[in-house]
Amino acid sequence: MQILVTGTAAFDTIETPFGIKENVLGGSAIHFSVAASFLSLVRIVADVGPDFPAAHLKYLETKGVDTHGIRKSEQPTFAWKGKYEYDMAVAHTLDTRLGALASFDPELTEAEKKAPFLFLANLDPDIQWKILSQMETPRYIGLDSMNFWLDQKKEKVWKVLKKADVLFLNDAEIRQLSGEASLIKAARLVQKNGPSIVLVKKGEHGVLAVGKDFTFITAAFPTETVKDPTGAGDSFAGGFFSYMADQVLNAQATVSEQLIRQAVVWGAAVASFNVENFSTNGLDKISREDIVSRCLDIHEFTRFERHG
Amino acid sequence: MQILVTGTAAFDTIETPFGIKENVLGGSAIHFSVAASFLSLVRIVADVGPDFPAAHLKYLETKGVDTHGIRKSEQPTFAWKGKYEYDMAVAHTLDTRLGALASFDPELTEAEKKAPFLFLANLDPDIQWKILSQMETPRYIGLDSMNFWLDQKKEKVWKVLKKADVLFLNDAEIRQLSGEASLIKAARLVQKNGPSIVLVKKGEHGVLAVGKDFTFITAAFPTETVKDPTGAGDSFAGGFFSYMADQVLNAQATVSEQLIRQAVVWGAAVASFNVENFSTNGLDKISREDIVSRCLDIHEFTRFERHG
Repeated sequence: MQILVTGTAAFDTIETPFGIKENVLGGSAIHFSVAASFLSLVRIVADVGPDFPAAHLKYLETKGVDTHGIRKSEQPTFAWKGKYEYDMAVAHTLDTRLGALASFDPELTEAEKKAPFLFLANLDPDIQWKILSQMETPRYIGLDSMNFWLDQKKEKVWKVLKKADVLFLNDAEIRQLSGEASLIKAARLVQKNGPSIVLVKKGEHGVLAVGKDFTFITAAFPTETVKDPTGAGDSFAGGFFSYMADQVLNAQATVSEQLIRQAVVWGAAVASFNVENFSTNGLDKISREDIVSRCLDIHEFTRFERHG
Repeated sequence: MQILVTGTAAFDTIETPFGIKENVLGGSAIHFSVAASFLSLVRIVADVGPDFPAAHLKYLETKGVDTHGIRKSEQPTFAWKGKYEYDMAVAHTLDTRLGALASFDPELTEAEKKAPFLFLANLDPDIQWKILSQMETPRYIGLDSMNFWLDQKKEKVWKVLKKADVLFLNDAEIRQLSGEASLIKAARLVQKNGPSIVLVKKGEHGVLAVGKDFTFITAAFPTETVKDPTGAGDSFAGGFFSYMADQVLNAQATVSEQLIRQAVVWGAAVASFNVENFSTNGLDKISREDIVSRCLDIHEFTRFERHG
């Protein structure tokens, strides 16, 4: 196990102007782990209900995801229903059934406590803190959250993020967290008071990364077909995190500015495949080489000679 | 004269959450020419009223802008009043007084007809066509338009843009022109049916450039202080166009993909200064070296090593 991810495993019902899909496999931990599976060994820690099909577990296992941390609850699997308008930018929640998620409070196994990379996908920050507290000596900690928790428990989110190495939020969330309208000011403010890297997800407009001594901005891959943006942020996080884990654990690289820039682009490339289809289907028929190819495309789309 | 620009000279009244300015110098041709003045000799062709202060003409002349093409009308100078909300992304028009603009239909002088670079700033496409038709053999033609003309005279905009080498539109406008939601598809569709380059302006999210054989995406400079976005698009166009004119006319460069990429970044850098203050004041205290420096910053913010 290289990466431990905790978050949701869910049934998603998605309405877009281009189609509707009912009760497909979704959830933050699922999108993250499928996206990370191209480079890293990931174990999911999540609760699902008796209604969670064995076929979903089997599917994850064929992707190389370790499903032994998926606990069976007596409550039904968490379910989310959302809708996107024509611009596909913002998800409007139509319905939420917490089910198994309401009582999610896992006790980690000894092996799980030893995972070198920990990703806390979007979840109640009190639960994120309890999971974090069980870990022995994680080398790299990633954190995601959302507007709901920033409304309800902003101080708790701050408490967790001070322990994180990298924070993932979208543009609206970082403004809400920091109380600052300018994205660059908002990201710098949070970066100075917490994680060494803040990654601001801007959807089709790419990603702003603010580190200790540098700023990096990448475009999103300009995909022509966006069918379902659900999980784009989790896929970006899975791509980024697995690239870091692979380089640090397998290639013995140190966490450098150059590595972070490449990991951001890798995450953006993975996310661009995810949005091209419903559920995790956009990642089903691609290989590691396809992701490399899209990273090279992003490089080609954004390069220019220095002036002067 | 290297560049001839036709468009508006205006009195702008601007409301933002951070302040209000009344009757300041504005207009598409003004913002364009001040932005272009760092690299090129620009003549403005526009109508103003008896109320247009001599001090404004003097100001433009100190920037090196050729004001001899500014005609005096008996009607008052065009005036626009607009408001920006907290996100500073979209201008809401509160009031428009056409004045001199209503009868704008200039007859070009022999010297003006011979300008090698022509920029048709946002204007009635019928007038744009009449100006274009008077030109002798312009080497490079740029065109801007807006949602109002796409509503009223879309076919006329198409007629003019088929003659243009480069088209400037924002994201909403290119979607409206093409009837295509995906920006990359929209830009490609227009590019294949008209100008050799389509530049999609995305405000704080940068610029998407689609040429015959390449796509280029640049981030905007992440300026911390946006005081007034009015004229950002015109400043971008002035920066881009003057960079092309300078390289082609002064440095004998050919119009290459590399040149276009650099010109886009130059335009983005100039626009980022424009938004930092009201009217054209953001460009008043900077030098060519400051623009170069910001281009180098954009390079630093966006560079990454190729994967694999």
